[in-house]
Amino acid sequence: MSQTVSAFRQVPPQAQGLVRDIRVRWALEEAGERYQERMVTLGAEQTSPEYLKLQPFGQVPAYEENGLHLFESGAIVLHIAERSPELMPDNAQDRALVRAWLFAALNTVEVPITMMQVLDIEEVDHNMEVFRSVMEWIGTRLHQLEAQLGTSEYLVGGRFTAADLMMVAVLRQLRTTDMVAKMPTLDAYVKRGVARPAFRRALADQMRHFEASAPNVVG
Amino acid sequence: MSQTVSAFRQVPPQAQGLVRDIRVRWALEEAGERYQERMVTLGAEQTSPEYLKLQPFGQVPAYEENGLHLFESGAIVLHIAERSPELMPDNAQDRALVRAWLFAALNTVEVPITMMQVLDIEEVDHNMEVFRSVMEWIGTRLHQLEAQLGTSEYLVGGRFTAADLMMVAVLRQLRTTDMVAKMPTLDAYVKRGVARPAFRRALADQMRHFEASAPNVVG
Repeated sequence: MSQTVSAFRQVPPQAQGLVRDIRVRWALEEAGERYQERMVTLGAEQTSPEYLKLQPFGQVPAYEENGLHLFESGAIVLHIAERSPELMPDNAQDRALVRAWLFAALNTVEVPITMMQVLDIEEVDHNMEVFRSVMEWIGTRLHQLEAQLGTSEYLVGGRFTAADLMMVAVLRQLRTTDMVAKMPTLDAYVKRGVARPAFRRALADQMRHFEASAPNVVG
Repeated sequence: MSQTVSAFRQVPPQAQGLVRDIRVRWALEEAGERYQERMVTLGAEQTSPEYLKLQPFGQVPAYEENGLHLFESGAIVLHIAERSPELMPDNAQDRALVRAWLFAALNTVEVPITMMQVLDIEEVDHNMEVFRSVMEWIGTRLHQLEAQLGTSEYLVGGRFTAADLMMVAVLRQLRTTDMVAKMPTLDAYVKRGVARPAFRRALADQMRHFEASAPNVVG
């Protein structure tokens, strides 16, 4: 197989290590699949007619595989996972739950986190009601997630799956806060995820392009 | 088969007709599958240990099918679509694109719309920079979506699929604004979606429970 994943050549420091291609790189590394990069420059190239054919919103990653093309990191990770026993259990109930948790990571847990990031970028006063509400919303989701994990190391079937990959990728975005750090179960869960050799390789491969301007970002 | 979809007995007027179970109801109606409802009361029942076993975040819909259970409307719609020719083409490229667009609806188009809703609930001044930024973000996504549609009636393969179901469900949330109405391509696209008999049945079945308190909500 011949896979290609698009990624940005450079992004602002706060996004480094978190750009969505890392999720697909991580999935490919877990699955033991090699891939090529297609580097894209923020701005004109990102919104060129040629790139918009691969990714209609000018985002990364876009993905190609033997002539098949798709986009959205959630869809790409799911696509890779469904053929990879490293990322997906083989019984129907657990497969359904991995999909459910992958969507939950993106649509239930990540949404308020993205909102916090936008409020921060827009320099909204942290004392404003809307900011406090969003932080409380994130806190509720983290407690529900912690309750779900209980004493399990992983979300589905007692083993690492694409659900954990996506959830850890989402939770890493809280690295600018102490929200995960102060919850021992979640903190251990994220640390377990980012300690995986496949994640370390994915992170290094994304960071390699940014290195000149941001030597100190950690996973 | 025996399917069950959970839904709320009552929600505030602004959510009526938009609660996430409508997406799953619509998919089941398109696929010609009958289902049962499991009604849940907002508050204590929603966060009861029994319900959290089905839906770890206390949301709707949760879904059961012959002993298989899953949650997250995106995951459930995809699950139904993948066995339903009414919602999913049969060639690999189009199937991959339907998934990509389903994720795009939820993760690229819906995110700023949800943010607008939260800012509105929190009564953030519409002149604030953050509000104007979020509205501009939504506008960008709508223009990119319009460009993608071009002269096509549907997102993938010239026919209605689960991608359109999800995208129309997401765009309906802009019913409190004129953003879709003033873009003829998108307006026609949404109207085409909500005119489908399967959607009309899904909407009626959700609204039936709320009728006493909200007789005037339209789809």
